Amino acid sequence: MSLMDLESAIRDIKDFPKEGIIFKDITPVLHSAPLFAEAIGHFADAYSEKRPDYIVAIESRGFIFGSALAYKLGCGIVPVRKKGKLPYKTIEERYDLEYGSAAIEIHADALKKGDKVALIDDLLATGGTSAASIKLVEKLGASIIGINFLVELCFLNGRDKIKGYPVQSLIKVK
Amino acid sequence: MSLMDLESAIRDIKDFPKEGIIFKDITPVLHSAPLFAEAIGHFADAYSEKRPDYIVAIESRGFIFGSALAYKLGCGIVPVRKKGKLPYKTIEERYDLEYGSAAIEIHADALKKGDKVALIDDLLATGGTSAASIKLVEKLGASIIGINFLVELCFLNGRDKIKGYPVQSLIKVK
Repeated sequence: MSLMDLESAIRDIKDFPKEGIIFKDITPVLHSAPLFAEAIGHFADAYSEKRPDYIVAIESRGFIFGSALAYKLGCGIVPVRKKGKLPYKTIEERYDLEYGSAAIEIHADALKKGDKVALIDDLLATGGTSAASIKLVEKLGASIIGINFLVELCFLNGRDKIKGYPVQSLIKVK
Repeated sequence: MSLMDLESAIRDIKDFPKEGIIFKDITPVLHSAPLFAEAIGHFADAYSEKRPDYIVAIESRGFIFGSALAYKLGCGIVPVRKKGKLPYKTIEERYDLEYGSAAIEIHADALKKGDKVALIDDLLATGGTSAASIKLVEKLGASIIGINFLVELCFLNGRDKIKGYPVQSLIKVK
C-alpha cells in the first residue's frame, strides 16, 4: 500500500452535491482496512517527533480520520461541530460560504493555554472551515502544531487561508 | 480505567437540545485518551472470537467510535449517513421521529452477501436509527454480528426495536 494506492481509490462523482462539481468520494478508502491504515500511518508520521495533546477533528468526515489517529497516537479528541450540535458551553466562529455564511463551534473547556493541537479534516477545499477551526483553537489559548487532510483540491487555493501552519495533505488534486 | 470511570465521565446537560431533556454529553470520554481507549477496548472485546468484516458507523458520533474500533480490529468502515450526504448510489430507510420522519442511507455497493457487520453508535435511545440501520445492512445481504453503544438510555426501551441481535452497551442509564 502506498500513497498512489490511496489516490487511485478516491472515486470521482460527477454533479454532486450539485451540477458542475466533481465530488471526491473518499468512502473507498474507509472501506479498505489496509488503505485506511495507510492514511492513518501517514498522518501519524507527521507527529513522530512532537506528539499533539489533542486531535481537533472537524465534523463529520474529519471525525473518521481524527479518532483513529488519536487512538493510534494516544491523544484526546476534540470535536469541532456545526452550530447547535455541541451540548455544553461553546465558542463559535463564522466563515463565508458561496452564498451567505455558516458557523462552527468548539466546547469552551475543550482546550487550554499550552495545549498542542493537530487539526484534521478529510478535505482541504477553499480553506474556510480550516481557518475558522484554527481561530477556535487559538481563541482557547492552544496552538496548532499541524493540519492534516486526506485530499487537497489545490486549484481552490485553500492553503492561502492557512498560511504559516504545517500542512500535510496525502492526495493532491491539481 | 474501568467502566465506572467511563460512566463518571459522562456529563449531564439539562434542557439540551430542548427543554425537559437531559442530554448525555460524551465529549469528556473523547477528551481523555485513556477513557477513549477503555471504551474502544470493551467494544473490541465483543469481537475477540468472531471479527467483523466491516464496522457500520452511524453519523456522526458513531463515526468517532466506529473508526477507532475498525482501526484496532483491522476491518473496513462503512458510514450510514443522513439522506443526501453520501455521494454515490445509495439505498435508504425511513424511521419515525417524535414529529414526522427522517431517512438514512448507505452506499449500495458498501456491503455484499456474506459480509459480517458490527453496527456502532454512541447512544441507544428509542432505537429508531439502529433499527433502520439494521435494515439497510440486511437489504444489502450482509449480516449483523453485533451492535455496540457507548450509552444506553434504558428507560426509552430501545432494545425492543433491535430484539434478537447481540447488543453491547457500556453505560446503562436507568
